[in-house]
Amino acid sequence: MTYVVQTKYTMTQSIFNSLKGNIWLEGLFGLEKENIRVDQAGNLALTPHPKVFGNKLKHPYITTDFSESQIEMITPPLPEISEAIGFLETIHDVVSLELKDEYLWPQSIPPILPSDQQIPIAEYGEDGKEARKYREFLAEKYGPKNLLISGIHFNFSYSEKLLELLYRKANPSVSFDDFKDEVYLKTTRQILRLRWLYILLYGNSPMSDTSAELQCKKAPYAIKSDLIALSIRNSCFGYQNFDDLFPDYGSVPKYKESLGQMINGQKIVASKELYTPVRPKFIRNPDHISYLEFRFIDIDPLTKAGVSPEALRFLHTLAIFGLLTDEPDDFGEEAQSEVNRYHNEVAMYGLETEKVSENHYQVWLEGKLIIDKIRDLLRELDINHAEYLDSLNQAMKLIDSPKQREVFGVLKGIEEMGYIPFHVEKARQYLNESIANSYNFHGLEDMELSTQLLLREAIKRGVSFELLDRKENFVRFLKNGNTQYVKQATKTSLDNYASILAMENKLVTKKILEEHKIRVPKGLEYTNADVAKADFLIHLGNPVVIKPNQTNFGLGITILKENTDEQAYQRAIDIAFEFDETILIEEFIAGKEFRFFVIGNEVVGILHRVPANVTGDGIRTVSELVELKNQDPLRGKGYRTPLEKIQLGEAEAMFLKQQNKDFETVPASGEVVHLRENSNISTGGDSIDFTDYIPESYKQIAVHAAKALNVAITGLDMMIPDVSAEATDDNYAIIELNFNPAIHIHCHPFQGKNRKLNEKLMDALGY
Amino acid sequence: MTYVVQTKYTMTQSIFNSLKGNIWLEGLFGLEKENIRVDQAGNLALTPHPKVFGNKLKHPYITTDFSESQIEMITPPLPEISEAIGFLETIHDVVSLELKDEYLWPQSIPPILPSDQQIPIAEYGEDGKEARKYREFLAEKYGPKNLLISGIHFNFSYSEKLLELLYRKANPSVSFDDFKDEVYLKTTRQILRLRWLYILLYGNSPMSDTSAELQCKKAPYAIKSDLIALSIRNSCFGYQNFDDLFPDYGSVPKYKESLGQMINGQKIVASKELYTPVRPKFIRNPDHISYLEFRFIDIDPLTKAGVSPEALRFLHTLAIFGLLTDEPDDFGEEAQSEVNRYHNEVAMYGLETEKVSENHYQVWLEGKLIIDKIRDLLRELDINHAEYLDSLNQAMKLIDSPKQREVFGVLKGIEEMGYIPFHVEKARQYLNESIANSYNFHGLEDMELSTQLLLREAIKRGVSFELLDRKENFVRFLKNGNTQYVKQATKTSLDNYASILAMENKLVTKKILEEHKIRVPKGLEYTNADVAKADFLIHLGNPVVIKPNQTNFGLGITILKENTDEQAYQRAIDIAFEFDETILIEEFIAGKEFRFFVIGNEVVGILHRVPANVTGDGIRTVSELVELKNQDPLRGKGYRTPLEKIQLGEAEAMFLKQQNKDFETVPASGEVVHLRENSNISTGGDSIDFTDYIPESYKQIAVHAAKALNVAITGLDMMIPDVSAEATDDNYAIIELNFNPAIHIHCHPFQGKNRKLNEKLMDALGY
Repeated sequence: MTYVVQTKYTMTQSIFNSLKGNIWLEGLFGLEKENIRVDQAGNLALTPHPKVFGNKLKHPYITTDFSESQIEMITPPLPEISEAIGFLETIHDVVSLELKDEYLWPQSIPPILPSDQQIPIAEYGEDGKEARKYREFLAEKYGPKNLLISGIHFNFSYSEKLLELLYRKANPSVSFDDFKDEVYLKTTRQILRLRWLYILLYGNSPMSDTSAELQCKKAPYAIKSDLIALSIRNSCFGYQNFDDLFPDYGSVPKYKESLGQMINGQKIVASKELYTPVRPKFIRNPDHISYLEFRFIDIDPLTKAGVSPEALRFLHTLAIFGLLTDEPDDFGEEAQSEVNRYHNEVAMYGLETEKVSENHYQVWLEGKLIIDKIRDLLRELDINHAEYLDSLNQAMKLIDSPKQREVFGVLKGIEEMGYIPFHVEKARQYLNESIANSYNFHGLEDMELSTQLLLREAIKRGVSFELLDRKENFVRFLKNGNTQYVKQATKTSLDNYASILAMENKLVTKKILEEHKIRVPKGLEYTNADVAKADFLIHLGNPVVIKPNQTNFGLGITILKENTDEQAYQRAIDIAFEFDETILIEEFIAGKEFRFFVIGNEVVGILHRVPANVTGDGIRTVSELVELKNQDPLRGKGYRTPLEKIQLGEAEAMFLKQQNKDFETVPASGEVVHLRENSNISTGGDSIDFTDYIPESYKQIAVHAAKALNVAITGLDMMIPDVSAEATDDNYAIIELNFNPAIHIHCHPFQGKNRKLNEKLMDALGY
Repeated sequence: MTYVVQTKYTMTQSIFNSLKGNIWLEGLFGLEKENIRVDQAGNLALTPHPKVFGNKLKHPYITTDFSESQIEMITPPLPEISEAIGFLETIHDVVSLELKDEYLWPQSIPPILPSDQQIPIAEYGEDGKEARKYREFLAEKYGPKNLLISGIHFNFSYSEKLLELLYRKANPSVSFDDFKDEVYLKTTRQILRLRWLYILLYGNSPMSDTSAELQCKKAPYAIKSDLIALSIRNSCFGYQNFDDLFPDYGSVPKYKESLGQMINGQKIVASKELYTPVRPKFIRNPDHISYLEFRFIDIDPLTKAGVSPEALRFLHTLAIFGLLTDEPDDFGEEAQSEVNRYHNEVAMYGLETEKVSENHYQVWLEGKLIIDKIRDLLRELDINHAEYLDSLNQAMKLIDSPKQREVFGVLKGIEEMGYIPFHVEKARQYLNESIANSYNFHGLEDMELSTQLLLREAIKRGVSFELLDRKENFVRFLKNGNTQYVKQATKTSLDNYASILAMENKLVTKKILEEHKIRVPKGLEYTNADVAKADFLIHLGNPVVIKPNQTNFGLGITILKENTDEQAYQRAIDIAFEFDETILIEEFIAGKEFRFFVIGNEVVGILHRVPANVTGDGIRTVSELVELKNQDPLRGKGYRTPLEKIQLGEAEAMFLKQQNKDFETVPASGEVVHLRENSNISTGGDSIDFTDYIPESYKQIAVHAAKALNVAITGLDMMIPDVSAEATDDNYAIIELNFNPAIHIHCHPFQGKNRKLNEKLMDALGY
């Protein structure tokens, strides 16, 4: 079988035979989703759009559509479908967490609606008079309830590299821009022909509340409150123009001309009022298509994001299949009428698993045939992307077992609970999920948690961002002309390079702090045991830590709190030298270590880390207590969560053994058992917020230290023996200043408040 | 033998037996040296102090002493004697290079002097009225010619750690500060007793010009113009008080009281007028001694720095020996008179190798004894510092062969050439040495050349500096409240951290430059040969470089200037993959690569690097031509010089073989033979300054690129096919921006001007 890009200008057969591989799947994918805000009873919320999201007209991610209560979430174009869905879900999370006692309604068909007059049209203030006026016009023409029908738009473009390769292979006489227009127009025509199959498999707006007062746009204009259909939204009861409108998809000039005629004929006031299921978009250049907007996607109530990657990947393969498959010459009014009718019938009657239209089985057979052809196509093109193959398998499964479609899960839920309670329950569940995981950026879970938190805050504030180097966590932010480059969340333009280098060099840090009368542990480095031993008199009577320069798990460390016994001193030196060729004899500073996070003149968070531990209840064993503690959703594996699960490994077993315990020991009630010596979060340690429990005097010292190094952002480690006492000249010591401190540990501690360092950083960056 | 620190308070015997090792040699060492400026005929210069050194009262390194023509050079306290001498020599170099047709007079006894009235007393302007007044008083009292007698002061303190160990071992009832005073006072008394030995071995001011009109300060106040002595400067004809003055060295209060009495008795106007050979200095604390100033060191005319490390190390051991050796109870007037007399007699008659004073041989015998005892002491203390042992050997050699003393070299020179011509010739020679090596900072040759150049400029401008981490080339500068931390010369506070990170990431750099319409080589990265081959159409017809991601010596690189042959393209990919798992297919940019050094809005230097090469003369072989070229003093080994010597190694042999040449080939006259493919300076490449030959249009692009990344300091690499053509949109490409570019290659290129980037950097840092 030979696939072609068949356009008016480029009737080149078999030209793409040699272009193989997953490059066919490369593209950019964006999503727009509307969700109506509802109260906890499922009534349309009459509250204003949350102020925290600022100017609706300028926010790149969060705005409103027709109604003030209809939040619209927009992702930028992204290179993977999974990333686009993750981004959308993250916007969804961010919005949900800012709503007060309200939910995002997870269904295209509206919740309980008040009268037309009470439905609030989106407010735009002085700057948005045009936007407001257009919505008032729509309300008048279509009725506000109809305008509350919500959905998802999928923005899609082929990768420029793919298009360039196609162009070079086709070698047509037209320009590259014209060639791309042809590609996108053929894709548009073919998706218009094939869209029924997507709706059949993934349509999901089957019922309504009576208050929705659904009305068919076509004669006889029936109002039906008890309608049950596969996709009401895609039916004549959904969001359609009153008139049958047939754009000319033959070329961009023809398309534009046909739209002009509709406007002149007063069918629509502007091209944006043309509600075609596929809309070519002209963004970068008014004369050429930038991407296609697929507009026939219902919100899936069973998925928090509102759409599954499988559904979108299937739609993507449908586009590629359409592009590479012969099409009939004609796509005039008659042909368009025919596919529109098919679309409407599938939307209306697609729930019937064995009959659509007059032709029993025909639709299912045709669907099966198309999916088989797509599979063949992918095989021929050497496309082996597992997730795409899976999505085709899933589509085929839905053909073979139509009852497995998500819409039947929704209908079952409505049957059991009622239309409103079922959707409210799903909304409540999604809110809880948003609350439980308020740290991840979906789709970017491979990035550092600190960066994910910062990106979430960027979404809230409407700060555009771009991943310059994802592996490196290197991001560019932009809002109102303020561009900021940020690496790993805390490496920013706020710090000068010299100060970073000073922090990086412990000798230099100590020296500067000492000059500023800030206490640091005094210490000497030795590479020779005899020299170290000869210095006994220097250290005599001072509490010291004798340790290898590099140490793991505290091995080779001796603390001499008196240091009056020369033999013990010498022994400690010999022990330390067993672990490294360089040892340190440092002033021993009693107390606990605290991480002070400083931004500018402010200590914005203080944290204490405790080694992995469990507290006994007199009944459970250590391993049972660990299992229980690990159920905390904040604990995960591989640094994807703010805390790590406590392990029951060799290191833990050894450390328990030193205490004459093992995993089967039953600790007494209230007894705290440590499983590790080191307090790293990465080995299951606990993070405990102390921000409000450390006297101001220590915070002043921390800020003073940051100032001494001329540092804007730092994570400063300070030893404090007694947090109940005010700081004096010598009851603390600063260990080091870290120039790349993590922020997530302060945002999601094991105990204590979220110190919202992502917000503080965005403030500092001027957003 | 047992050594003691024997003071009034701490009569502790044998307390130091257990303190062993080179810690005894730890201390801080500073130098002050006066050199008279002379014209090329050896006349006292009557020009003003060079303006370039700014305010005499504030410059930490370069000022004047009594006369406007008497430059005083001051080092900070440094941890090694060699470092102090290197620092002094570097100040000497910096001063010498700023003098116009003048030399620094390398002798304690003055050059040709005009009449008293014509000798210019140092000018200080409005802020220095006190300083001026004091000098006028001195001129009146001692005569200006006497005040032109110059010398070296050696500032010495024991390390605090050594003093603390001594204190802990002695465990005296006095405070640590009082103990240290005792240590320094005993050292003072003992050096006063032992100083004659230093003068005997290293005294070096044997003659004068008649214009000096030397006059003895003691009755009968003889004037002697034909005096020949070991050390005129240390004799009564030198720089001494008129009165015999005997401070009380018993304790700090007694010392201060005795000086007060001298001032009250109008013997001196202030303690600074007391010209004792050793002067305790009270800097950090007016009540306790900070360090000792040894003032009896003649300028050595045979050494550019004016003093050798051997002499100072011997003096240092003399101090330690004095501290650890019993002393007589008494050091009153009688005892002081006795040692002063000895001092004067050695200075006057020390040239006589077999007789000093009435006692034949006695002085040599006693010197030998002392040096032997010092050797014993060092052995007992386990001091094994080779250079210190060498300096003792040298001292002993001078005892055994008194004629080997430097002073006899000076006398021989004077005999051959005359007093004035000999010293002028030495001065001229030192100036030439300063010119030949105008890039090194003596004593810090282990640091990067860029840093050494910056430190030299700091000296010139009077910017104090401190080596925070010498290995890391991490320096702190300070002047007029402006503190700057600088690492590796170009890592500074002028750059923000985010811009550094953007430069560090080539992907990000390219992206930003492209967005700013700056041309960069387009390129794609591949990890799979099939994928790379499939992209043939993308690269078809474009000139490309196909290369391994990591490459050495250009291996695996193919340039396809047409790229129309698919087989050649595929072969190039296979070749590249033989050398790395990742390959790049990059746009090929023709032309030469130039390094643009940008500071702020200015391109301050442009350099082109050429691979190691020689130009034939039709006679010499390649290896002879290399040997000749390598004689350039700019070429060294191991990055200590601005250029590296061309090697005749395997790589060079291989590269010649490709050209059917070897080391014995005789290239034709004018033929350029390259010995390397790569143009690195480190493999013998030439650096050629192009700053004045590159059109302004390219410089604007470089500045624009730096601005795009918001960078203050960068070394930008640009490809330019034709430097005679103005820049257009597509006749150049920027390869990368380096955030730590070397400056020395622009200061000392193989061909072209010194672009003085050290000056430009100091300007940029605000100094």
